[in-house]
Amino acid sequence: MIEFAAFKGSPSGEIVEHRARLPNLTENEILVRITHSGVCGTDEHYKYTNIVLGHEGVGIVEAIGTQVSSLKIGDRVGWGYEHGSCRQCKFCLRGEELYCDQRKIYGESSTNQGSFAHAAVWPEDFLYKIPDEIPSVEAAPLMCAGSAVFSPLHKFKVAPTERVGVVGIGGLGHLAIQFAAKMGCQVVVLSESPSKKEEALALGASEFHNLKESPPIRNSVDHLLITSAKQPNWEALFHMMVPGGTIYALTVDMNEIRFPYLPLVMKALRIQGSLPAARGTQRQMLQFAARHQIKPIVMTFPLNRTGIEDAMETLRQGRMRYRGVLVHEA
Amino acid sequence: MIEFAAFKGSPSGEIVEHRARLPNLTENEILVRITHSGVCGTDEHYKYTNIVLGHEGVGIVEAIGTQVSSLKIGDRVGWGYEHGSCRQCKFCLRGEELYCDQRKIYGESSTNQGSFAHAAVWPEDFLYKIPDEIPSVEAAPLMCAGSAVFSPLHKFKVAPTERVGVVGIGGLGHLAIQFAAKMGCQVVVLSESPSKKEEALALGASEFHNLKESPPIRNSVDHLLITSAKQPNWEALFHMMVPGGTIYALTVDMNEIRFPYLPLVMKALRIQGSLPAARGTQRQMLQFAARHQIKPIVMTFPLNRTGIEDAMETLRQGRMRYRGVLVHEA
Repeated sequence: MIEFAAFKGSPSGEIVEHRARLPNLTENEILVRITHSGVCGTDEHYKYTNIVLGHEGVGIVEAIGTQVSSLKIGDRVGWGYEHGSCRQCKFCLRGEELYCDQRKIYGESSTNQGSFAHAAVWPEDFLYKIPDEIPSVEAAPLMCAGSAVFSPLHKFKVAPTERVGVVGIGGLGHLAIQFAAKMGCQVVVLSESPSKKEEALALGASEFHNLKESPPIRNSVDHLLITSAKQPNWEALFHMMVPGGTIYALTVDMNEIRFPYLPLVMKALRIQGSLPAARGTQRQMLQFAARHQIKPIVMTFPLNRTGIEDAMETLRQGRMRYRGVLVHEA
Repeated sequence: MIEFAAFKGSPSGEIVEHRARLPNLTENEILVRITHSGVCGTDEHYKYTNIVLGHEGVGIVEAIGTQVSSLKIGDRVGWGYEHGSCRQCKFCLRGEELYCDQRKIYGESSTNQGSFAHAAVWPEDFLYKIPDEIPSVEAAPLMCAGSAVFSPLHKFKVAPTERVGVVGIGGLGHLAIQFAAKMGCQVVVLSESPSKKEEALALGASEFHNLKESPPIRNSVDHLLITSAKQPNWEALFHMMVPGGTIYALTVDMNEIRFPYLPLVMKALRIQGSLPAARGTQRQMLQFAARHQIKPIVMTFPLNRTGIEDAMETLRQGRMRYRGVLVHEA
């Protein structure tokens, strides 16, 4: 292959097909033939930019640079959310490139790194080998959605004796329930869709609360993951938090956040903005998912312009159950 | 003494003198003759309630219950902010009674526990022996203001290699600068009062920024303590935070908090509501203050109705340099 199809955003938000040319690989680069790509809510925000969309890529190593040592042609690999790579700041030096001082928000991905494409070129360091137990179609949603929910549970050392709340059952939420349950935690799901109750319990939740009906129980949750696309009613959530508890903000919302200051201080609550996992954690997440059979529930679409538009429309309408995956098995 | 003077709030906010009767001491209780009490911004909020104000008490042990073992008559002791004491919740069980599930916000202090009084009765566990090196007039502001700023630096393990920002130079801020500097951190002070620059540097600050003039430097502060009575411009502060950094909310403000959601997530920032120190930490704070000569800068007033009103008015007018202490040396 010398050219490959890639799908970009545009100022109008329309998805544009682009013929990308393969560059020569540098010493540590790898060419991946993409077979699967998850569709993330964040792609909605990126679709107005001139970059190749997608950051839940999975595929097969097709060619490697001369210095690549950890992966070989034919390996099944994946990659996740964009990161910086100054290699000098304290974050890059400890494998937390998502925090890199030089990382730009929105628009960093080059033409060759988005996963809404038939190929991508990545430095070896940012590709993760997919465990044999995980099919590629299930690996794709783990790369960002799985990473985004595993990251805070792991980084902030959520204890198996604690109660973990999950607001929203969608691409992130349905994975958060599984991960937290397999970590041994009690999982409390909060949703405005009572029809999802049975599925939440089947995924491992111990309790389900309809946010529209009953107010959450006071002081009952230690860690709360906000996985919904829209911001929740913060005051109600403060009420349910155990003193000293943490609320994790995982999803992108362009609005202001507003909540009463007094309970934040008086209950010593923490609001923690959280990014997907650092490289070392991403590897551990994949191993944990394989070992505990964490299974994304997916809807598949063809990895072409129409498939992308269908998937994004399904997501916008709130009909995705629960993660869209674009498939290109040539 | 059978009766003693105590000063309460009232629905109109006027300070009311009350003649309190001494109760019989239970086995583990201690009667303290109060010599000094700090005046905290929080007293402004409590002054509309029917409780004895004040929670920065220092005095002399006058009598002890039959089972008291750690303190004796004549000892110099102090106490701080109100706490719960269910003795059963996980917080009480680990000496973090400030987080107690049963703690009520505003109005817990009984008639015998406020420090705007000439005596108070406390269980032995909640009184702290004042190190000999610290005069009582300086110990009083440490009991809540010192505790409030030491608590997050200690609890969240701020590293001496990190840069600590302090917003506001007042009762809390002037102590935060000293504690953070003595912990080995670089201290960046942000204030709207350029006249306080020299004093900030003398207290140990490495840098002083006039918030009214120059925008804070991007990605330059790891931990930021909000010690001002009013909320800051959150967006400007987000800009100056290092990715993954923490902003500590230490002071009570009745307003809503509002800030943009996107940078919170994209920079993985943390907003941490923070309470004064747990009991074990309070002891360590006092030892640290004694060892490093942390010195509150105080203005003194008589511990009577007029003195309290003068002190609170001075605080409201922003003229306190930097902590008011009520003195009653009978």
